[in-house]
Amino acid sequence: MSAAKEVYIAVIGAGGVGKCFLSQLEGFSKRSSSKLSLIFISRSKTVLYSPKYTALSYDNISTALADSKQEPLSVPKIIEYLSAAPAKVVLVDNTSSQDVADAYPAFLAKGISIVTPNKKAFSGSYKLWQDIFSAASTSGAKVYHESSVGAGLPVISTLKELVDTGDEVTRIEGVFSGTMSFLFNSFAPTEGSGGKWSAEVKKAKELGYTEPDPRDDLNGLDVARKLTILARLAGLPVESPTSFPVQSLIPKELESVSSGDEFLQKLPEFDSQMEDTKVAAEKEGKVVRFVGSIDVAKKEVKVGLEKFDRSHPIAALKGSDNIISIYTKRYGANPLIIQGAGAGGDVTAMGVTGDLIKVLERLT
Amino acid sequence: MSAAKEVYIAVIGAGGVGKCFLSQLEGFSKRSSSKLSLIFISRSKTVLYSPKYTALSYDNISTALADSKQEPLSVPKIIEYLSAAPAKVVLVDNTSSQDVADAYPAFLAKGISIVTPNKKAFSGSYKLWQDIFSAASTSGAKVYHESSVGAGLPVISTLKELVDTGDEVTRIEGVFSGTMSFLFNSFAPTEGSGGKWSAEVKKAKELGYTEPDPRDDLNGLDVARKLTILARLAGLPVESPTSFPVQSLIPKELESVSSGDEFLQKLPEFDSQMEDTKVAAEKEGKVVRFVGSIDVAKKEVKVGLEKFDRSHPIAALKGSDNIISIYTKRYGANPLIIQGAGAGGDVTAMGVTGDLIKVLERLT
Repeated sequence: MSAAKEVYIAVIGAGGVGKCFLSQLEGFSKRSSSKLSLIFISRSKTVLYSPKYTALSYDNISTALADSKQEPLSVPKIIEYLSAAPAKVVLVDNTSSQDVADAYPAFLAKGISIVTPNKKAFSGSYKLWQDIFSAASTSGAKVYHESSVGAGLPVISTLKELVDTGDEVTRIEGVFSGTMSFLFNSFAPTEGSGGKWSAEVKKAKELGYTEPDPRDDLNGLDVARKLTILARLAGLPVESPTSFPVQSLIPKELESVSSGDEFLQKLPEFDSQMEDTKVAAEKEGKVVRFVGSIDVAKKEVKVGLEKFDRSHPIAALKGSDNIISIYTKRYGANPLIIQGAGAGGDVTAMGVTGDLIKVLERLT
Repeated sequence: MSAAKEVYIAVIGAGGVGKCFLSQLEGFSKRSSSKLSLIFISRSKTVLYSPKYTALSYDNISTALADSKQEPLSVPKIIEYLSAAPAKVVLVDNTSSQDVADAYPAFLAKGISIVTPNKKAFSGSYKLWQDIFSAASTSGAKVYHESSVGAGLPVISTLKELVDTGDEVTRIEGVFSGTMSFLFNSFAPTEGSGGKWSAEVKKAKELGYTEPDPRDDLNGLDVARKLTILARLAGLPVESPTSFPVQSLIPKELESVSSGDEFLQKLPEFDSQMEDTKVAAEKEGKVVRFVGSIDVAKKEVKVGLEKFDRSHPIAALKGSDNIISIYTKRYGANPLIIQGAGAGGDVTAMGVTGDLIKVLERLT
């Protein structure tokens, strides 16, 4: 075998997922047949990088980054810095930033590969989606985003393989949000009872299962973004995550209250709405769940509440698990199902690290 | 982009999976950025190949192969022929032959990559397993075998990624045989009743769900082979599929009857054994299923009958579906679950075609 090739790694974002990723990267670097050099890491206001492309040390890197006095770089400056590197570069975007996502075509055009859990790039405008894959195809740079749907669950790789091998995806449905999964598994458990809606939302927030303002989960946009990505991979040129019906669980009257805390405080006044939905489902022997579905033939994508038999796999989900059912011509009546934790720093970072391995195996 | 690289494809085996694969290969060849040339195809007694490495035509290839007057090549001759090819070669082994499997190290040592659903190579002796991966590592040839467990379901790729990214696999359990799944879903359905054991075996055979002699399914060896593969990937150096407890469902008295037909004819005399097992489970409110499990910490692998609550995902399986639950440190109490058809020509071939795509992306 030839000498280990050197590959430079640049990481944007050092929050929950970012920290888990750094730990996985450090471990993987020791086992990899490539020589992986972390040369750049940034978070919102600080940056740590090596102007001469020598590897940064992982020891106390979070502290070093927080204390760094290096001048933060704009996105164009980051591209300039990375494209001047004397070996192949992989950018790891562990943010949920639209600005970084918008720059993917520019990174890729310079031959910089990208791995990321950031949904924004792949669920934004259809033009951005096209620009990303066209830039990658032209330069030969790679782009992988497994963790943008279902965290580390092998959803995107499986869907791509079905399509690439010539299967016809007919329908995709499932629970795509760990937050929504947790909320409905507690609010309307298959064994009956369950708490009041507002109490479950409050509990989910306290347990760290929601965004700081729970409305950012309850508006359904997170699920709509994931459906946009999967629909596009299945062949539907979905224009944006707001171009199909998405049911928001935010009562109209609370859409404009100023804070998440005020929202939580007033939510109990609207408990009867969700209670009615739950009782209506129970009368049919069913439970209500917040799901997304894609009907490829009808070109229909939708996100919202649906009722399921108690024995249905979607009803029987536990904790904050995701479940994704992919119906195809080859698989017939029984779908290919993937289920498990769809959120959390470690499993999200795992999808990113897995993507990095795929890129390294494909870089020539 | 540079001109499309040419890659030669050689296929051994043109039965159920082989025919489906050829059809998928023909379709994929038209979409691939590589120039894929099928130069060799063989089945039990005939061979069709191009001595000068020009591409064979897909038109009526099955008939052409059946009618071929070319002299069949021994495995060493096939290796000689393929290693003299003027470009990279991928061998697709669509047989279940131990002889071909035993030659994998020799193919790989010559730089010939392999994709296959053949379990024999990866579940034979541990020495063969080591020889295969050591030959691949030395020559740089690739070897993928997704369809050796769960057909096209992404089981092996997912397990590998968990391990490669540094997760700790603690336990794997599931239903790994389409035949066993079908038999038990009919014999002991969650909603109660179900037919007599011998009648279900007979029905399964008539529907084509069993091997010609159903004892080849009922002895548990097929499941034991799959468990051997997964256990090795999870880090256990399992010596062979007979080095751990495997429960056979063949009554002792029928082990040596001469034919599958005689076996089926006499099986009703032993129905009470399975009926007792079923009733015992029902008394606990459970159903019986034929499962395999791997406890990584205890280094225990076993295959046989177990009882499950009716609400357990393993109990609720449908048709001939497989289900594989992977418990890891990162995923915690709720496993990563993959479920769907685990047998059938098209979905098995899909795993092979998917592996071929992976090899093509990695060949430099």
